Amino acid sequence: MEVALGKNKPHNVVIIGGGFGGLYTAKNLKSTNVNVTLIDKRNFHLFQPLLYQVATGTLSPGDISSPLRSVFSKSKNTKVLLGEVNDIDPKAQQVIMGDQVVNYDTLIVATGANHSYFGKDNWQEFAPGLKTVEDAIEMRRRIFGAFEAAEKETDPEKRNAFLTFVIVGGGPTGVELAGAIAELAYKTLKEDFRNIDTSETKILLLQGGERILPHIAPELSEEAAISLQKLGVVIHTNTRVTNIENNIVTFKQGGEVKEIPSQTILWAAGVKGSAMGQILAQRTDVECDHAGRVIVEPDLTIRGYKNIFVVGDLGNFSHQDGKPLPGVAPVAKQQGEYVAKLIKRRLKGHTLPQFHYNHVGSLAMIGQNLAVVDLGLIKLTGFLAWVFWLVIHIYFLIEFDTKLLVVFQWAWNYITRNRRSRLITGREAFVQVKTTN
Amino acid sequence: MEVALGKNKPHNVVIIGGGFGGLYTAKNLKSTNVNVTLIDKRNFHLFQPLLYQVATGTLSPGDISSPLRSVFSKSKNTKVLLGEVNDIDPKAQQVIMGDQVVNYDTLIVATGANHSYFGKDNWQEFAPGLKTVEDAIEMRRRIFGAFEAAEKETDPEKRNAFLTFVIVGGGPTGVELAGAIAELAYKTLKEDFRNIDTSETKILLLQGGERILPHIAPELSEEAAISLQKLGVVIHTNTRVTNIENNIVTFKQGGEVKEIPSQTILWAAGVKGSAMGQILAQRTDVECDHAGRVIVEPDLTIRGYKNIFVVGDLGNFSHQDGKPLPGVAPVAKQQGEYVAKLIKRRLKGHTLPQFHYNHVGSLAMIGQNLAVVDLGLIKLTGFLAWVFWLVIHIYFLIEFDTKLLVVFQWAWNYITRNRRSRLITGREAFVQVKTTN
Repeated sequence: MEVALGKNKPHNVVIIGGGFGGLYTAKNLKSTNVNVTLIDKRNFHLFQPLLYQVATGTLSPGDISSPLRSVFSKSKNTKVLLGEVNDIDPKAQQVIMGDQVVNYDTLIVATGANHSYFGKDNWQEFAPGLKTVEDAIEMRRRIFGAFEAAEKETDPEKRNAFLTFVIVGGGPTGVELAGAIAELAYKTLKEDFRNIDTSETKILLLQGGERILPHIAPELSEEAAISLQKLGVVIHTNTRVTNIENNIVTFKQGGEVKEIPSQTILWAAGVKGSAMGQILAQRTDVECDHAGRVIVEPDLTIRGYKNIFVVGDLGNFSHQDGKPLPGVAPVAKQQGEYVAKLIKRRLKGHTLPQFHYNHVGSLAMIGQNLAVVDLGLIKLTGFLAWVFWLVIHIYFLIEFDTKLLVVFQWAWNYITRNRRSRLITGREAFVQVKTTN
Repeated sequence: MEVALGKNKPHNVVIIGGGFGGLYTAKNLKSTNVNVTLIDKRNFHLFQPLLYQVATGTLSPGDISSPLRSVFSKSKNTKVLLGEVNDIDPKAQQVIMGDQVVNYDTLIVATGANHSYFGKDNWQEFAPGLKTVEDAIEMRRRIFGAFEAAEKETDPEKRNAFLTFVIVGGGPTGVELAGAIAELAYKTLKEDFRNIDTSETKILLLQGGERILPHIAPELSEEAAISLQKLGVVIHTNTRVTNIENNIVTFKQGGEVKEIPSQTILWAAGVKGSAMGQILAQRTDVECDHAGRVIVEPDLTIRGYKNIFVVGDLGNFSHQDGKPLPGVAPVAKQQGEYVAKLIKRRLKGHTLPQFHYNHVGSLAMIGQNLAVVDLGLIKLTGFLAWVFWLVIHIYFLIEFDTKLLVVFQWAWNYITRNRRSRLITGREAFVQVKTTN
């Protein structure tokens, strides 16, 4: 199939999803004569790498969100459409949103990933994941609600379950959550309660593999584990969760089976490609991997359709070292930039060599003055890594938005260990806190 | 009835409500040998005067909330209890929260007010009010959702209804909402849409009395009206809303009846005392006024009970000039301070002269560089009043919390007209936006 390249009629690019992949595609098509339509279910881009700080009360949702319309307010060739895509018709080159149809010449699917419970969807109720603002607010409600419930509880066993936090998954999100909860329990909230001693809080981090942060160098992963343990987090590696029910986590470590009663179990383990992957597979016969990610070609298109691209977490790109690229912001960003460039080249009758991910480094925040940064040759830990982490995130954040003051405020809160955003909200905020008691 | 004044056993003060009244009572009992228990349904104090800025997307809920536990973290004589009070037993001197009972020697009821639809509770669905964080998030969702729906709507009449905002009530909240929406429509969002021109937005402010802001001097109220009209707000005075249904407001102005189709109707008209007023009335035979406010004695106690105080919006204090004091933060603050002082005096066997409200001034924000300030002899308008308003609010905010950076950020957003917090959230955020279309 050839790509439509009419020189005089405007070329319609439709992007589904306003995460990093979709946003960087659209941004890099600014000031071209291409018509860009960016479709998202939400009216804002979410800076997901900092979502765990919303969940743990350091930031407000507004601090890490940029309204999509204001990001593109000056790009007159870009139209933001709020809505949910139900279907795609690759023959007619149409995207279907309820009774609305949007025509495309080139389509970019960038709808990302959701959390996966490996088929045990009933675990979700007891162990929420962290993908959306609502997820973060729900996690925040559970974390702070648990301390409140413990303060009221007179039964020592029940109180213990309220003061036990289990985080499933030892990747960056799990590590960041564990570190943040440790700082909360052992530092920030220390003086706040009268009946409980928050320093009795137990924080468990369960990891399936043999080390946490498997994507970084083993010595850094070791360093991160030591830092977390110093903060008070108990790490269980080679551990498989076998059941989550009625606020009890059951897990297997070696031959041993353990049960831990916990009122706050947080899921940071599996992800799966969003539903759009299945729709693409049905409509185009493209293959998806076991995690529901779409197998993409070396130029990020899908087999048989040179005008359909998949970027970011939804794609499985395995043309670099045989392994799929990780689902992280820098991959999505670079893929978005690549696709925008390729579209511009194509319109001039040219093309581009295949996509190549330029891996700069991996990093994870553990806590105050504690992080690990793996830049390949350069490896940082402790305070230096922490500063590096801050600088990288500030750099990323201000790229969209001149949120300088937010960034300062955030750094300030971080330094002063302020948790001003720990309000428990939501329609049933209070009722829920009561019933968990 | 005499007040228990045992010198050796600690005196138990129970405060219901962590708004301005309750908070200032508790703060002024710091470092005494009185045991203070502060009960609230929520885990945070809310700075309500700025809630309209959360509703209109300038601030995040976390920016105007202080966790109650952190406010009192250093006051070892103060215990924060999260929960809802169901009943009071004035004979046994007990507060009942579900199956929990809290004993008091002195009780302060400071549960504030809710909005009132003057018996037309079915209006609430179409015209939400603004008292809680959830209210503000709901208003924000409706306001920004209306622009989104208008952008999608092809029928000009329906689009018109999406671009029509009706604010019922011309007090400070109504004026502040109208001004903020005008700035949003005519300035902030001007470049953001492709199908609609937000400058076609209609904003109506309906006021029952003959002028807006009736609590300030007539010449300032006139000035405020002119400023709002310049911003683009249409003001209808002497106007009585007779019905709100299916997104149509019906109102009577003189002899004329008008119907305005509007998808966004906001309620800033009536308030009524919270449910605790009725409970007090049943248990103590104290009288409530027509708005459900508890009639208090000159020393803020209730008749027959020298150890029960009502402070803030829930009380009707009419011993100064015959009219009840207004339900504003400075009244609640001064009443809280007075009650704390009276308790301390009583414990030494003394008393205090009756409560006297020291009225410093009234003020209302209209928009960028526009406010009105009435200090009696000194009256300010325009930029000077705006600066004064900012300073007063900053002063109030930093009294609880060293939120200096938040304040700077807020001033910054205000100056740059940034609305970074305009995310539409909530469990049904997207669905709702769709169905209003």
